[in-house]
Amino acid sequence: MAEIASLPRNETGIRTVVDILRQQFGERLHTGQAIREQHGHTTTWIENQAPDAVVYPASTAEVSDLIRVCATHDVPVIPYGTGTSLEGHVNAPAGGICIDLSEMNAVLEVNADDLDCRVQPGVTREDLNTWLRDKGLFFPIDPGANASLGGMASTRASGTNAVRYGTMKDNVLAVEAVMADGRIIRTGTRARKSSAGYDLTRLLVGSEGTLGVITEITLRLHGIPEAISAARCSFPTVEAACQAVTAVIQYGVPVARIELLDTIMVRAINGYADLGLPETPLLLLEFHGTGAGVEEQAGIFGDIAGELGGTGFEATSTPEERNRLWKARHDAYWAMLQYRPGAKGVATDACVPISRLAECVTAAQERALELGLIAPIVGHAGDGNFHVTPLVNMDDAEEVAKAQEYTSWLSQLAISVGGTCTGEHGIGQGKQSYLREELGDATLVMSEIKAALDPANIMNPGKIFAPLD
Amino acid sequence: MAEIASLPRNETGIRTVVDILRQQFGERLHTGQAIREQHGHTTTWIENQAPDAVVYPASTAEVSDLIRVCATHDVPVIPYGTGTSLEGHVNAPAGGICIDLSEMNAVLEVNADDLDCRVQPGVTREDLNTWLRDKGLFFPIDPGANASLGGMASTRASGTNAVRYGTMKDNVLAVEAVMADGRIIRTGTRARKSSAGYDLTRLLVGSEGTLGVITEITLRLHGIPEAISAARCSFPTVEAACQAVTAVIQYGVPVARIELLDTIMVRAINGYADLGLPETPLLLLEFHGTGAGVEEQAGIFGDIAGELGGTGFEATSTPEERNRLWKARHDAYWAMLQYRPGAKGVATDACVPISRLAECVTAAQERALELGLIAPIVGHAGDGNFHVTPLVNMDDAEEVAKAQEYTSWLSQLAISVGGTCTGEHGIGQGKQSYLREELGDATLVMSEIKAALDPANIMNPGKIFAPLD
Repeated sequence: MAEIASLPRNETGIRTVVDILRQQFGERLHTGQAIREQHGHTTTWIENQAPDAVVYPASTAEVSDLIRVCATHDVPVIPYGTGTSLEGHVNAPAGGICIDLSEMNAVLEVNADDLDCRVQPGVTREDLNTWLRDKGLFFPIDPGANASLGGMASTRASGTNAVRYGTMKDNVLAVEAVMADGRIIRTGTRARKSSAGYDLTRLLVGSEGTLGVITEITLRLHGIPEAISAARCSFPTVEAACQAVTAVIQYGVPVARIELLDTIMVRAINGYADLGLPETPLLLLEFHGTGAGVEEQAGIFGDIAGELGGTGFEATSTPEERNRLWKARHDAYWAMLQYRPGAKGVATDACVPISRLAECVTAAQERALELGLIAPIVGHAGDGNFHVTPLVNMDDAEEVAKAQEYTSWLSQLAISVGGTCTGEHGIGQGKQSYLREELGDATLVMSEIKAALDPANIMNPGKIFAPLD
Repeated sequence: MAEIASLPRNETGIRTVVDILRQQFGERLHTGQAIREQHGHTTTWIENQAPDAVVYPASTAEVSDLIRVCATHDVPVIPYGTGTSLEGHVNAPAGGICIDLSEMNAVLEVNADDLDCRVQPGVTREDLNTWLRDKGLFFPIDPGANASLGGMASTRASGTNAVRYGTMKDNVLAVEAVMADGRIIRTGTRARKSSAGYDLTRLLVGSEGTLGVITEITLRLHGIPEAISAARCSFPTVEAACQAVTAVIQYGVPVARIELLDTIMVRAINGYADLGLPETPLLLLEFHGTGAGVEEQAGIFGDIAGELGGTGFEATSTPEERNRLWKARHDAYWAMLQYRPGAKGVATDACVPISRLAECVTAAQERALELGLIAPIVGHAGDGNFHVTPLVNMDDAEEVAKAQEYTSWLSQLAISVGGTCTGEHGIGQGKQSYLREELGDATLVMSEIKAALDPANIMNPGKIFAPLD
């Protein structure tokens, strides 16, 4: 586990707040060690820093009351969705109160004609899609995990089909949030676009709970496409695969997903699911549109792939066959873990201009080899976002150090080619030093906004901002 | 002309700053009355409030130097692109220095493989598209006027094809900006998506020069579609036309433009260009895609329109015929002015959920009739954004008062149905009271951000924020 510095604790304040909240929330406040630790970060290699209590509010008014109490006594507030974030976002380095929003899980309103809906933050993306299915609508953002929509908004999540549908920033129309003094604000309306003042929606989306707690979200929805088809194609090199991606995007094919798996990842999947895939870089695609449209898209991709040495091209529109083609991607996480049993995957999140994707993926492979790390790669290639996942024996201090050296090197590589250290995971505790490197004095402006809106620094303290030198 | 309160002037500071800047900028600083008034707002019915001097910087460093001088002496800074904004954005109610960015008009970098480019703020959208044409790329945002890209970013502009390509918020990847203390920041990288800290890009886009002056913009580009087709169809009622729009969007047709013209507007166009259009509501569309794709899209629209009583449906892919079909929209502005010679058009900018579009447009027509106003309507119907433009004799005080009553009523109507008073024009001086009505306490959060980043209120003062009660 990587150690993260604790912050000073306000013991008196915390004791007082827990007492007050216990009166207010009764059995909905928990202080047992197991539940507290479960609410420290779980899907990360960063050490667990448990909050002092976990509270399950049932309404925005309760969140507001709770934050007012914390504000009065200068006690940290850490919002929690499903705990699937990857950079220590839900840790409590200064202790404090974890607000678990899972009980605020109602779909409040679906406006089918307007392709929008309003949900509470604890609704998960799968729950929302189940709810929407018989209306012919869906919410496209798919980060893999069945995350809560509040959490996805807070980290500006995206995933496999951002290349077509955008990220959370593009699909959140407005939020309701409780600010550091307990004020409840609503940042926008149901209008599809607006020029009404500062874009507080986009400021709160991706702010990782450091400015306010999101208590409602108005989302854009999309019609379920008439037809969906999938395709798969192997390439002799990462470069050829990336050239195919660039060509598809430039051609304007409205591809819904285009995922790159490197040779090690394909090997891991073959070991896990016996798919018999050629052990070379693989592209997996999904097309959304009319029947004729998806056929045309697949055809254009097939032509492009063929010219670039692609082999084993397959495309299909039937759901079963689609699932068969995409099985390699769906199994990637489990296949990785089985590829090196007992190891932990260390998440990385570089996102680079797609013209630099091939060289960055190749460099990432070479560097892992040099350091003796086993590090499969999957990438949301259409966005230039790729995840190298060193599989690390966490009991081997030397190997952990190498993995840390590697992730640091990779973040710097992404920044050096005009990209970002984080395409979709966020900064949290893990990437603070790179943020400064990536955006320079802009991070000071971020700090000034943070200080203006949360002067006592009670909102998810210790996240995003590195202590200044 | 509508009067807008002047703000207190810092006469000593202004004199000092003009003297210092004259030494620095020589002939690039202007104080003649004509040029100053020309840099007060021109395309608006708000009275002209001229700055004290107009300066033409040539570089970001010069903008930074200039703002440092203004900051030292507490003098307002008003950025200026082409002066085509509509809500008094470039007025100088407290005097100060207008920064005309038209000399910073270089396309700095085009990355065709990555579909992005970096431009200075004085580049206009038409200039950029001319520059891009032989690369097979284009920049889609089209607000009508040949605005500067800096100005378009500052007002979060959009226009006819936002329904497919989004607004400036969706097409700006990053900006470089000079803040109120002269600091130069860059808000993002060339990565297509990012979760790296607060979204300062989206905070500056739409901030109307009140937080910083945008000195460079990294933009997303798009491949010129293989095929473009256009269609036109008349409808018996506004309601039927809006139902067709809803159906097209819900069906997932990736329509590039879908514009509504009401009966009065069609009548005005017939008078101007003798197009012989049926004098009923009209929809104009444009489709982008492959040859087969645009044909299919037009076919789907034709079917939908037919079911809703649409008549005179025409579609075509040849450029000349496309221009003929779209002539009605291109001529709309001039046709309006000729419809009531000598009158001035008063811009409005309601944007509502599309399920409410028909009733809002109908109500807007009825209310204009009640007030005796002639007010043609064009709408970016796919986004629910529509512009009613009362044609007003500005010498008739009673009529001006009626127009003001009308625009106020219309903003409130939009807000009451879950929409916004401004889909794309911005708040400026003209819509401050509605902003508060629309977003409530969120506007206080905006003020707090403004105060944190520009404590002396020198950045385009008097815009966006209404004085608090």
